[in-house]
Amino acid sequence: MTASWEELAANKKRAQAESIPKEWLINTPPDSQLNVSKVPLECGLLSEREVEITELKDVDVLLQRLAASDYSAVEVTTAFYKRAIVAHQLTNCLTEIFIDRALAWARELDESLKKNGKPKGPLHGLPISLKDQLCIEGLDTTMGYISWIGKPASKNAVLVDILLEAGAVPFVRTNVPQTLMWPETFNLIFGRTTNPYNRSLTSGGSSGGEGALIALGGSILGVGSDVGGSVRIPAAFNGLYGLRPSYNRIPYQDAVNSMEGQESIYSVFGPLSPRMSGIKAFTKAVIDSEPWRRDPVAIRKAWDEKAYQLEEHGNGQNLVFGILWDDDWVVPHPPVKRALQRTKDALLKAGHKTVDWKALKHGDIYAVGGAIWAADGGKDFDTTCAPTGEPLISTMLPSSTEDTPEPPAFRQRAKKTAYELWQIHKQKRALRKEYLDSWEATKSVTGTGRPIDAIISPVAPWAPPPHGKNTSAAYTLIWNTLDYAACVFPVTTVNPAIDVVAPPHDFKNKDDQATYELYDPEVFKGAPVGLQVVGRPQEEEAVIALTEIVAAALKGLPE
Amino acid sequence: MTASWEELAANKKRAQAESIPKEWLINTPPDSQLNVSKVPLECGLLSEREVEITELKDVDVLLQRLAASDYSAVEVTTAFYKRAIVAHQLTNCLTEIFIDRALAWARELDESLKKNGKPKGPLHGLPISLKDQLCIEGLDTTMGYISWIGKPASKNAVLVDILLEAGAVPFVRTNVPQTLMWPETFNLIFGRTTNPYNRSLTSGGSSGGEGALIALGGSILGVGSDVGGSVRIPAAFNGLYGLRPSYNRIPYQDAVNSMEGQESIYSVFGPLSPRMSGIKAFTKAVIDSEPWRRDPVAIRKAWDEKAYQLEEHGNGQNLVFGILWDDDWVVPHPPVKRALQRTKDALLKAGHKTVDWKALKHGDIYAVGGAIWAADGGKDFDTTCAPTGEPLISTMLPSSTEDTPEPPAFRQRAKKTAYELWQIHKQKRALRKEYLDSWEATKSVTGTGRPIDAIISPVAPWAPPPHGKNTSAAYTLIWNTLDYAACVFPVTTVNPAIDVVAPPHDFKNKDDQATYELYDPEVFKGAPVGLQVVGRPQEEEAVIALTEIVAAALKGLPE
Repeated sequence: MTASWEELAANKKRAQAESIPKEWLINTPPDSQLNVSKVPLECGLLSEREVEITELKDVDVLLQRLAASDYSAVEVTTAFYKRAIVAHQLTNCLTEIFIDRALAWARELDESLKKNGKPKGPLHGLPISLKDQLCIEGLDTTMGYISWIGKPASKNAVLVDILLEAGAVPFVRTNVPQTLMWPETFNLIFGRTTNPYNRSLTSGGSSGGEGALIALGGSILGVGSDVGGSVRIPAAFNGLYGLRPSYNRIPYQDAVNSMEGQESIYSVFGPLSPRMSGIKAFTKAVIDSEPWRRDPVAIRKAWDEKAYQLEEHGNGQNLVFGILWDDDWVVPHPPVKRALQRTKDALLKAGHKTVDWKALKHGDIYAVGGAIWAADGGKDFDTTCAPTGEPLISTMLPSSTEDTPEPPAFRQRAKKTAYELWQIHKQKRALRKEYLDSWEATKSVTGTGRPIDAIISPVAPWAPPPHGKNTSAAYTLIWNTLDYAACVFPVTTVNPAIDVVAPPHDFKNKDDQATYELYDPEVFKGAPVGLQVVGRPQEEEAVIALTEIVAAALKGLPE
Repeated sequence: MTASWEELAANKKRAQAESIPKEWLINTPPDSQLNVSKVPLECGLLSEREVEITELKDVDVLLQRLAASDYSAVEVTTAFYKRAIVAHQLTNCLTEIFIDRALAWARELDESLKKNGKPKGPLHGLPISLKDQLCIEGLDTTMGYISWIGKPASKNAVLVDILLEAGAVPFVRTNVPQTLMWPETFNLIFGRTTNPYNRSLTSGGSSGGEGALIALGGSILGVGSDVGGSVRIPAAFNGLYGLRPSYNRIPYQDAVNSMEGQESIYSVFGPLSPRMSGIKAFTKAVIDSEPWRRDPVAIRKAWDEKAYQLEEHGNGQNLVFGILWDDDWVVPHPPVKRALQRTKDALLKAGHKTVDWKALKHGDIYAVGGAIWAADGGKDFDTTCAPTGEPLISTMLPSSTEDTPEPPAFRQRAKKTAYELWQIHKQKRALRKEYLDSWEATKSVTGTGRPIDAIISPVAPWAPPPHGKNTSAAYTLIWNTLDYAACVFPVTTVNPAIDVVAPPHDFKNKDDQATYELYDPEVFKGAPVGLQVVGRPQEEEAVIALTEIVAAALKGLPE
């Protein structure tokens, strides 16, 4: 007899619970405790040394200590594993748990270091968390689909192989929304991931498991994916750094994906980390591995150290940033505006310059992105759900049975023919051309002889909203559609004392009005606010360097 | 009253004829004279100095003499213009003729050189012919469509701007098949372009105007486009070099195209030239201009001099080439086999090595390419023809009214939904992965520690066939579908004395049988045979260097 989808999901969830060692269970705080960000340090599970290791936050420092055998890979993996399990008990951020396997990899690394006297690779001994798309041989990759339970991968994703060869230790996989196509994290197998700073708020999505886990110190480096903001939204919502690289710079081969074969706006993998050193270490290590030898669509483009040294950007001196105050579609909430102002102040104080960046046809670009996502009329989702009859999630609201809200823009269905898709591609190209020309034209206003070096943009019009309310990915989707490299950096947290409700403005449209009405300082209290540094296509190296400069400038500014 | 399509076409063709100065008209040989390759030198129109200039063939040498003011840009442009007009009278290879404009550009360059004492750019004074897609402000770009007559471009294609800034002199545009999607050259406005070595044979297509023009010395460097072989087939059929770069390395922005918005297999622009120096000069000059600043989908990847120095290919020493004797679909004709053997002998004599490259699922890859081309069900063609009611060409046979042959594989119609297109993309990616893995796996057989450095492949199973008989682009489409960089080089010409009919083999399929039956040494007599050097994606620099090595090796082999 075939099990129902409910039984299949329950069995999988039970197996997950059973994979957690009993001695790693903590006395969890009551659900009413919204901010759980300090629990990992207070719960008493981690030894002093494990606290030290997991509090380093800086990947470069951790790598140095691993290379010097100050810490063994086994103890670092154990420390992060314990803390990841704590994070999971607080926010429900994990999917696959495979302690023995991770420790076996760590042990091999320790032996290899002892034997060879040198690290296995640039990420030697570094535990790395992976979004639930990055297949590991022998493990399920359900991506939130019940239909994919019990189908272990026959091989590793190429990126997993590359990370293993670089000496990294994949140690957990992290939660996602069913279909991935939602900027929150909830599915019918593993449930909902919450925000560690305020569990009544979303962790974002679709890499929301990564966001919550890393924010709680349960991982120092994680890999998410981003087709419309799925790395950047969780990064911003959890106070982290997160990079969306350009199409096909980081290999996707042999990972699972939603809407596979959709090549109009490629999904990309990118890193999340509490410090920029993690973002750079991941990106450089992966590109240095020559992924184009294993992923047939990966771009043959080596790590460009000159680009990282900002050779094309005045060597990082006297930079000019364009500030996108709003997208001419939806006015951001007061904390986001304050974050923009704060970043501007920091950049000016650090000797750089800013200009206002006027949104250019963002509404048209969203329409193109949305039409591409909708082009199969939902067939990919339906086909995937069909084998078990599991329902397709239609809302992220906690009490979903009662209300059936209109699907958000990113969940429309509007089936297209191939010819119609080609016409959308023509629009996309024309808009991309116009945007690029507009960027290059700023040469006449910067005073540096160069166009603006980057754009500083919101990641969302809000800090992480309550569950079910993150109904737009517009501020991130824009850069996917243009294929601009973008890196998120944390700026501040919502402070009701200063982030007061603004007087109503002339609303541009109903999204703008709904956004305005959503804001309540008490609801968003303590929530992280991040922004993104946006460069042009394949400017990953420069965007990483520019984000380092922005982060340093923010550190130089008093609270 | 609106003119009929016939009138519109006739008017356009008449205007073209009128744009030719009377004093440049020659006594054309009778149609029965098949080989016209020597007519430009024998017709007496060109002065001794014009013969000298147009016989240089080597772009680097010509550029040096232009930079040194040995020749002025005006006299070089005039020389090539006269010879181009001769070529046109022999093979009908031109579309737009704009002598005044070209000479005005040349004059400016001469003045600039005199004034500044240095060339305007890397292509200073070099006349360049352009396929009838590369828009020039104020000129029609009909691409063989009557519906596009009388719609002059409002701006230059980005590539035209780049070439002008580099100092090149666009001086003619060249003929194409209506729709571009045919490896021969015939349309209802300008008619048919023939092969200068044997006018009963095709010049190939879709850049067939370029092929015939350059073979007759009417241009030293031309730009074609290639979505399934359209640079390489005319290059091979006319005894030239021709490069198909990877997707988006050379800018396409603001050029017109067929099936615009089709992004599954991008069409690309690439150079044709009688020597490799032209191929390199074009590619380097265009990439050095940073096309990603003007074309939003151009890859940000500078000219890689180390790749050109073959750093990843043993610095060009002890190379190992895989020979693709056949594609396991259609066995090539005897002259093509002889060309492969001759190239192998030349490489061995030059100290390199060859291994047999077994075709991997070429039939499956053709099917994917064909399905993508067919995916709009012909709507792009129909929509473009509709305004004037011009017929869509359904055969390239000279007496097309009587026979309606089954459309060749590249002209099928099989309308797809966006979802179905995504499923084809999945197959494409899987095949590309398998092909790449197979390439990398040759590391175990080369003995160099590297995989094979390149593949030597036929460009077609035949030398240029009679008009209407070039019914397959399979041997070229394969590399477009895989996005492998490929450069054509000339090897030999058909010699009935040695290229005798082979005994029949076990035919693999009906294409194979039809191909076998097509061969008659007397029909193909004197026709050029070229092959292609194939590298992996974005290996343009290495492929150029490797083709130089192959060309040098062939020169070192006695006839």
